Amino acid sequence: MKTIDVCLTPRLIPDFKLEDKVVVVVDVLRATSCMITALAHGVERILPVATLEEAAAQQNRGLITCAERDGRKAEGFDLGNSPFGFMDPHLAGRTIAMTTTNGTKSIVLSRHAACIVVGGFLNLGALARYLTVKNKDVVVVCAGWKDRVNAEDTLFAGALAAKLADRFTHANDSVLLARSCWEHNRANPKHFLAKSSHFARLMGFGLEKDIDFCLREDVYHTVPVLDAEGYLVAR
Amino acid sequence: MKTIDVCLTPRLIPDFKLEDKVVVVVDVLRATSCMITALAHGVERILPVATLEEAAAQQNRGLITCAERDGRKAEGFDLGNSPFGFMDPHLAGRTIAMTTTNGTKSIVLSRHAACIVVGGFLNLGALARYLTVKNKDVVVVCAGWKDRVNAEDTLFAGALAAKLADRFTHANDSVLLARSCWEHNRANPKHFLAKSSHFARLMGFGLEKDIDFCLREDVYHTVPVLDAEGYLVAR
Repeated sequence: MKTIDVCLTPRLIPDFKLEDKVVVVVDVLRATSCMITALAHGVERILPVATLEEAAAQQNRGLITCAERDGRKAEGFDLGNSPFGFMDPHLAGRTIAMTTTNGTKSIVLSRHAACIVVGGFLNLGALARYLTVKNKDVVVVCAGWKDRVNAEDTLFAGALAAKLADRFTHANDSVLLARSCWEHNRANPKHFLAKSSHFARLMGFGLEKDIDFCLREDVYHTVPVLDAEGYLVAR
Repeated sequence: MKTIDVCLTPRLIPDFKLEDKVVVVVDVLRATSCMITALAHGVERILPVATLEEAAAQQNRGLITCAERDGRKAEGFDLGNSPFGFMDPHLAGRTIAMTTTNGTKSIVLSRHAACIVVGGFLNLGALARYLTVKNKDVVVVCAGWKDRVNAEDTLFAGALAAKLADRFTHANDSVLLARSCWEHNRANPKHFLAKSSHFARLMGFGLEKDIDFCLREDVYHTVPVLDAEGYLVAR
């Protein structure tokens, strides 16, 4: 039986052997939810980049750019980090360069994995089916918030571990914690997250509708997968 | 209102500003449970040391030595890491040098804190009262297992945060996770821990009675505090 493990913050990535594993990067609020939404709505490819400078360079190359820092759209770029911004039919067939505070950084740090995919509540069921077919050991890398553990990504890791419980054994106690957190709060995740730091930050920006959307399960069947050239494409 | 935060593994200690804070080091199975037990039974002082070599040097100075690696007593030392070993009346008034796989390391890495105390279920109530009177920001440092998160120390962090909820606000999402884990499993912590890696390891060594003892709440009123010379003494 294959294993599932959870890396609770990008700071801990060096402690994981990722070479033979599938990494699921998750940044529920909101980077990976945006990636899933974009590819589900016809965006062709997403290039995750670590810095604003790299995003600006891609803008000069003619790519559509999405840049977020500290929960807000960064000045001078085309899009911020709201999933609703990625539903625009004009984006269909286009390539987007994306940089966010935490989510894209986790993808970059996980590069040595055998395979990187992107998860969120929006594609939970499709992701679980993908991982089951793939049949390799899985590490869920929680993007967290500036290297600290966050509640929503851990909650998602627990939800995924619960969905895969019949087919993947727990590699580590961090999976137990994530699952416990999910089992305790699955009836009302929003109530639980209401006490979290990033929830308060987004509410302060008037983004409750983003939160509500990102917590919806199985809205899309799309699983973004990092290809050999470093672009996320729909699988 | 003061804050409580949780550092889920020693690996994350550098991300915390400990200078003005009280650090509670916890290694439920079994280092900090042993320290509480020893001081409650009359041991005068405990010198936590990081390596077996340092412990051996203290043995040559005439101290009683306690050394554990990978869950077992290390060869050539007086005591291992079972709380029952520290109830011996012959230890009353003596000084013990102690090194364990995870617990003593966390104390050493937290040295820059304003104050270091030692916690476990055995002294949960007394510790909560001590922290309330102290009235400084608190960081619970979970010793984990070889730099990985573990279930029992996170569970304890959640139990302490729950006890202090009226007087300490949550500094960070890691407190939410620990509390959720505790609330979900408080009715039967042993059932939850039965799925954890270290539980299985200790059960394999025939140490179920150690586990049962370490999970008992409020057996002792002793709060071990690190003094200016680097010794843990009963407060």
